[in-house]
Amino acid sequence: MEENVQIGEFDLIDWIRRQEPDRAVDSWTRVGIGDDCAILGVGEGTGAGADLLVTTDMLMDGRHFRLDTDGPEAVGYKAMAVNLSDIAAMAGIPRAAVVAVALPRSKAVDIARGLHAGMRELADRMSVDLVGGDTNAWDGPLVITITVLGQGTVRGPVRRSGARPGDVILVTGPLGGSLAAGRHLRPEPRIHEALALHRAADIHAMIDLSDGLSSDLPHILDESGGLGAILDASSIPIHPDAHEQARRDGASAFDHALNDGEDFELCLTVAPDIAAKLLAYPPEPARLYRIGEIVEAPGLLVRTPDGRLAPLAKGGFDHLRGRSA
Amino acid sequence: MEENVQIGEFDLIDWIRRQEPDRAVDSWTRVGIGDDCAILGVGEGTGAGADLLVTTDMLMDGRHFRLDTDGPEAVGYKAMAVNLSDIAAMAGIPRAAVVAVALPRSKAVDIARGLHAGMRELADRMSVDLVGGDTNAWDGPLVITITVLGQGTVRGPVRRSGARPGDVILVTGPLGGSLAAGRHLRPEPRIHEALALHRAADIHAMIDLSDGLSSDLPHILDESGGLGAILDASSIPIHPDAHEQARRDGASAFDHALNDGEDFELCLTVAPDIAAKLLAYPPEPARLYRIGEIVEAPGLLVRTPDGRLAPLAKGGFDHLRGRSA
Repeated sequence: MEENVQIGEFDLIDWIRRQEPDRAVDSWTRVGIGDDCAILGVGEGTGAGADLLVTTDMLMDGRHFRLDTDGPEAVGYKAMAVNLSDIAAMAGIPRAAVVAVALPRSKAVDIARGLHAGMRELADRMSVDLVGGDTNAWDGPLVITITVLGQGTVRGPVRRSGARPGDVILVTGPLGGSLAAGRHLRPEPRIHEALALHRAADIHAMIDLSDGLSSDLPHILDESGGLGAILDASSIPIHPDAHEQARRDGASAFDHALNDGEDFELCLTVAPDIAAKLLAYPPEPARLYRIGEIVEAPGLLVRTPDGRLAPLAKGGFDHLRGRSA
Repeated sequence: MEENVQIGEFDLIDWIRRQEPDRAVDSWTRVGIGDDCAILGVGEGTGAGADLLVTTDMLMDGRHFRLDTDGPEAVGYKAMAVNLSDIAAMAGIPRAAVVAVALPRSKAVDIARGLHAGMRELADRMSVDLVGGDTNAWDGPLVITITVLGQGTVRGPVRRSGARPGDVILVTGPLGGSLAAGRHLRPEPRIHEALALHRAADIHAMIDLSDGLSSDLPHILDESGGLGAILDASSIPIHPDAHEQARRDGASAFDHALNDGEDFELCLTVAPDIAAKLLAYPPEPARLYRIGEIVEAPGLLVRTPDGRLAPLAKGGFDHLRGRSA
């Protein structure tokens, strides 16, 4: 739900967030727009563990996938995966999903069956019930919207907003180049990793990396009251696909690791002593990489191997790239 | 959520319903695919009143609206209204909504603001929080998906499946011709009517009329174990717009009342003594019209003013029309 495309300077969902009136007295809303999922308190007196998580994502042919080359199963899988990744980002347990589709009329049945197979594979593995939907056919391109409902654990959902100066920043896997080998179509939502980490440690803040580290980490910094971060250039885990992508387009693999989207790894912040413990004994099945630390001063900096600090632009790394090129 | 378009003989959502595997032991799903909303039991030990209702509907430019003539506010209103109508059909209380949009790139900002104004108007009036969403831009037509979450009342959600032979069939308003004067863009979801009726009486079965009486009433008959219904031709309340539509296309206003979609009135069945009470003292703000009765023998019949019975085809009234023409 975090993939809010900026249209020029305008973002509908962010704008709605600012427009939102005061809630009704009996409102369910604990957290509305502005995190990976909304958090609703369903009913009253339900106690801990009854936080309802809600997230929705729409995928369109030509933008998030190419139906003719990727095929409908990959689309169904990805549509489910990106939603589950949002549940993972709050350390939630996914429970149920509803799906709405606009099917190209000419091959509607084949596409529908393929979508279902792809959704089902992941839903079965993650114990998600497909509980409803809306089927439409038209002469336009394939569009699919999935909404996933999940449950906060007894420790409560993990927000983007809890980072503190001194926190260590961790990611759950190597980054970059997801487009090179089609990995963007088969993301593995880090549900089990998030739950294991949440059981093992007090996670201060977490987000899933859908738009790229340099775009998503600032959400944690902004929501946590305007903090900053220093990333260690030599510590960023670079995916082999980022090297492949770099060979193709001439940018550096490091740039791809910082800026590419659709890795769907988790980025989290924890206190330094907790980080040391987690890195020494990562709770199965999580893998963990230390990439930097949270600091008081706003902004995103990169510490180069020779110890210099250089600013990292959101969505780009032009300054350092200029020097290191 | 009931508007499952048949693509030839194939319906994705209905097909998923048949494919659905056994639920996990800790599944939230009480009712999955096959009613106006899914019903989920969120958490454990939450007691009555904690049923979560979920429904999703996707609207596409050229199919459910025409953006260039209807404008984005009407689209936002309608997208919210059709979802709220599904909550009304189960006598639920709407609580929160998430929205996903694919915006035509050229006028994305204006369209987004208009959509929001239309959604907000209805959401404010019905105390629905807009808690999240996903904004996308592309070169394709406008697509909007809204998912609404609601709460079952302490009496529980009203299903489609509880009709009994002898039940009286009621509707909450006159039917037909919703296209004639643009009423299909401004449906009034019968939330307050449903809640008032549910407080006042034991409703056996209920559905909202989105596809038309002759298409939607059979869902109640099928889900209630294969029952039938006899509609009284002289009792069907015919909307003035149905007469207008009839003047334009030459079909009868009665046909339009039976077969036109998008009235979004409620159709319900209750025991005969309850019907008599409700018709004598309709609970505010509900209006009620008696249109027929449920019978044991499967099929949908129309009783003409001279007392003859004629079969009514699903989605059409060809047989009787042939005679009465």
